[in-house]
Amino acid sequence: MTSFLPASFFEQLRTLVGHDHVHTEGDLSLWEQDWRGLAQGKALAVVSPASTSEVAAVVKLCAEAKAQGAAISIVPQGGNTGLVLGSIPDGSGTQVVLSLRRMQTIRGIDPHNLSMTVDAGCILQNLQEAAKSAGLLFPLSLAAQGSCVIGGNLATNAGGTQVVRYGNARELCIGLEVVLADGRIWNGLSGLRKDNTGYDLRNLIIGSEGTLGIITGATLKLYPQPAARACAWLATPSLHHAVELLALSQKHLASGLTGFEAMEQAALQLVEKHMPQLRMPIAPTTAEVFVLLEYSDDESETRAQSRLESLLEAAFEAGVLTDGAVAQSLDQSQRMWDIREHIPLAQAQEGVHLKHDISVTSSSIPAFVERAKAQLQESHPDARVINFGHLGDGNLHFNVQAPLGADPKAFVKELAQPIQAIIYDTVAFFGGSFSAEHGVGTLKPAELLHYKDPVALSLMRSIKQALDPHSLLNPNAVLPPAADAQAGEAA
Amino acid sequence: MTSFLPASFFEQLRTLVGHDHVHTEGDLSLWEQDWRGLAQGKALAVVSPASTSEVAAVVKLCAEAKAQGAAISIVPQGGNTGLVLGSIPDGSGTQVVLSLRRMQTIRGIDPHNLSMTVDAGCILQNLQEAAKSAGLLFPLSLAAQGSCVIGGNLATNAGGTQVVRYGNARELCIGLEVVLADGRIWNGLSGLRKDNTGYDLRNLIIGSEGTLGIITGATLKLYPQPAARACAWLATPSLHHAVELLALSQKHLASGLTGFEAMEQAALQLVEKHMPQLRMPIAPTTAEVFVLLEYSDDESETRAQSRLESLLEAAFEAGVLTDGAVAQSLDQSQRMWDIREHIPLAQAQEGVHLKHDISVTSSSIPAFVERAKAQLQESHPDARVINFGHLGDGNLHFNVQAPLGADPKAFVKELAQPIQAIIYDTVAFFGGSFSAEHGVGTLKPAELLHYKDPVALSLMRSIKQALDPHSLLNPNAVLPPAADAQAGEAA
Repeated sequence: MTSFLPASFFEQLRTLVGHDHVHTEGDLSLWEQDWRGLAQGKALAVVSPASTSEVAAVVKLCAEAKAQGAAISIVPQGGNTGLVLGSIPDGSGTQVVLSLRRMQTIRGIDPHNLSMTVDAGCILQNLQEAAKSAGLLFPLSLAAQGSCVIGGNLATNAGGTQVVRYGNARELCIGLEVVLADGRIWNGLSGLRKDNTGYDLRNLIIGSEGTLGIITGATLKLYPQPAARACAWLATPSLHHAVELLALSQKHLASGLTGFEAMEQAALQLVEKHMPQLRMPIAPTTAEVFVLLEYSDDESETRAQSRLESLLEAAFEAGVLTDGAVAQSLDQSQRMWDIREHIPLAQAQEGVHLKHDISVTSSSIPAFVERAKAQLQESHPDARVINFGHLGDGNLHFNVQAPLGADPKAFVKELAQPIQAIIYDTVAFFGGSFSAEHGVGTLKPAELLHYKDPVALSLMRSIKQALDPHSLLNPNAVLPPAADAQAGEAA
Repeated sequence: MTSFLPASFFEQLRTLVGHDHVHTEGDLSLWEQDWRGLAQGKALAVVSPASTSEVAAVVKLCAEAKAQGAAISIVPQGGNTGLVLGSIPDGSGTQVVLSLRRMQTIRGIDPHNLSMTVDAGCILQNLQEAAKSAGLLFPLSLAAQGSCVIGGNLATNAGGTQVVRYGNARELCIGLEVVLADGRIWNGLSGLRKDNTGYDLRNLIIGSEGTLGIITGATLKLYPQPAARACAWLATPSLHHAVELLALSQKHLASGLTGFEAMEQAALQLVEKHMPQLRMPIAPTTAEVFVLLEYSDDESETRAQSRLESLLEAAFEAGVLTDGAVAQSLDQSQRMWDIREHIPLAQAQEGVHLKHDISVTSSSIPAFVERAKAQLQESHPDARVINFGHLGDGNLHFNVQAPLGADPKAFVKELAQPIQAIIYDTVAFFGGSFSAEHGVGTLKPAELLHYKDPVALSLMRSIKQALDPHSLLNPNAVLPPAADAQAGEAA
């Protein structure tokens, strides 16, 4: 399927980026397969440029080949840690995987401007550490931080655990360098906090999952390091009470509230079952919903503790808490986060299951969960809901596990579609999103077509057509022409 | 110049929005003239719809007339308080002014989600007060807040005095309702903090100055009200020291730093001269640069005072301060803000002058000011620089007043162009912006063409073409086809 590809194509690629950085043979699964092993494609080539101008040259070469009739497209790839198959090639053998991983330079840190400019291939954790070395904080924080790269974080507008205070990846970016579909470079790098000279191209590229341009560099916001962080583990009678606790925490702690994670009893019981070595601060049987609250103080450790304790007093008084434990050390705080972060692992040990990364407004969370559970109960009475997530952002991982004793694989195979429909329909009923932080990729275009406002879809199509008229960039992701055509036929 | 306009056009307009809400005769200067009186156009009609569906119907009618060959376009208008002539018609008599001012409903406040959904025509100050009544804060704050409306604030991505903590209007919006160029309504209202399902249409519309769509409603972020606010008036030896003070303040006060305004000596001396009743906390002769610092505390008045005082101690120790006064009451704080806000008025009393709303990185500010002043000094040795602004955001109002004794009008008329070129060229040298918060409107398209990255301009053109192919919406603003054509001829 490399029809019309110029004979010299691979040679030209090797001239552009160096012989060692074009792979067409051998085991390419590192680039062709997603890390969960859900899918594996077949790349035309894996190309790893070392600079923005090399990225531009590769894109230009591919665009020219396409213009001459070649079946070719480009899948930009960062750390390949996404959850929606947005950075691997399809099986056609016509897609060039363009890996940004060789571009790892921190171009500069400007402490007085609280910003740093970096290559797209920088690993997130390296950026956190570079900021820390300068006495500052880069707050983006997520499970894959040891292997994901900032270009991918921006292309997918990553979320994570600090969104309630610092926002998504989008909010942490004040400048972008992008290679466009025709190989031109848009230099939108800037440390400016204010610039009202024209359309917001930066935010248009951020979150477009490599379909409108390839991010090669970024200027990022930095923050002062907080003087202290403290965590509390809190037991509440219901999600309704947890939402009241959120409001109370926001009022008392204001911008000091840097984490607010909720976990239902069943999620913690699964952790207890599979990781008995992780000691729970409070027995999961004693309450319906637990909250892991993180507070950051700009003054001192002592104040962090006393602020947290005074919140707890107010919360007990307001009747939204039944029990609470304040971590007395960073180590204890870390153990609380460990429990939260082991829920997905406990779910995996329990067996394959259905994941849903949804959001509604924080205020709608209790009603959403009640309704979604009731509807599930009706059609699948024994399915087990494992519900937890970033309550402070209205973002839940509303997952569903097979009934006890049932075969998880058979359950998932048979019921993925109907259960997903129940949950996403309920999300839609509350005006929510079927993908809060994971994106669309090549896994959820059908959901996009089904649930997204048709006017928004039409605007998106116009923009894709305007910026990438030949569908060179990640054509199967977000809004593939094929899915569109199918929808057209169905309509 | 109403060629090809259907005979029934005005009758149809009146049917759509009501007889009283279409004006074609009499004194329309309220809508046709900007508030500074720089320019007055001639409207084909002033139309004031009462609802989103009425806006859509008006746009559809105009789009149809245009499709049938009529010379017609639409200028959306909010409070008409902008500074770049972005919301008034040209002199052709072919532009419909579509005023949003009748749409003033606060559709709902969701305290648990910290959000409110409002009509585009709501006056900013009313929204601040509505939030306050709910015990919350809507932080957008600017001089025109008594008459500007939120739709205009979003269409121009307004800045103001709280940006250092809360960001521009863009950062305060989590949902948008927009009427598109063909009259379709995009309902992007949402209280969601996280939604990664497709391109960021919201931010594309925000800041597009009515050229890509007409904002009819918005969902806005709210914040907890701070427990206390306190201000300090600080004397520093130079802008370099002021930038050091900014870094120190960010480190010590973190997110409590809600305002950081810098004023050079000459700006304050002008206030002293014209408003002697405003008592200066520190005599302007004693230092080169003064800073008005605002701190917001989430705990108490007492803590606000003590935090400010401990910052001052650290700043004295670091040698970045020569003098400082902490306001002992809200009244004293207000008086400090009064001085800052009287600078533009003192400038006006001194005579017409040249305004420049520029930004560079905070770290570049001293070097930028030094270089710009040196270049001005060379060619216009007696021109007086009146420099002040939002140093915390890298945003300066780097204004120039006629020499003492010279005729201000003649000075402005003769030297506006060359002085502006010196300043904007210097801004460009430092990678800054010629319009930090005021936008482009119909006043600065030439600067946009001259200073903006050509690739960015080309992307902007593609997007305008995709979303408004017939140039129905605010065609003279931002990137008018005429300016483009001229640039093309020049190239």
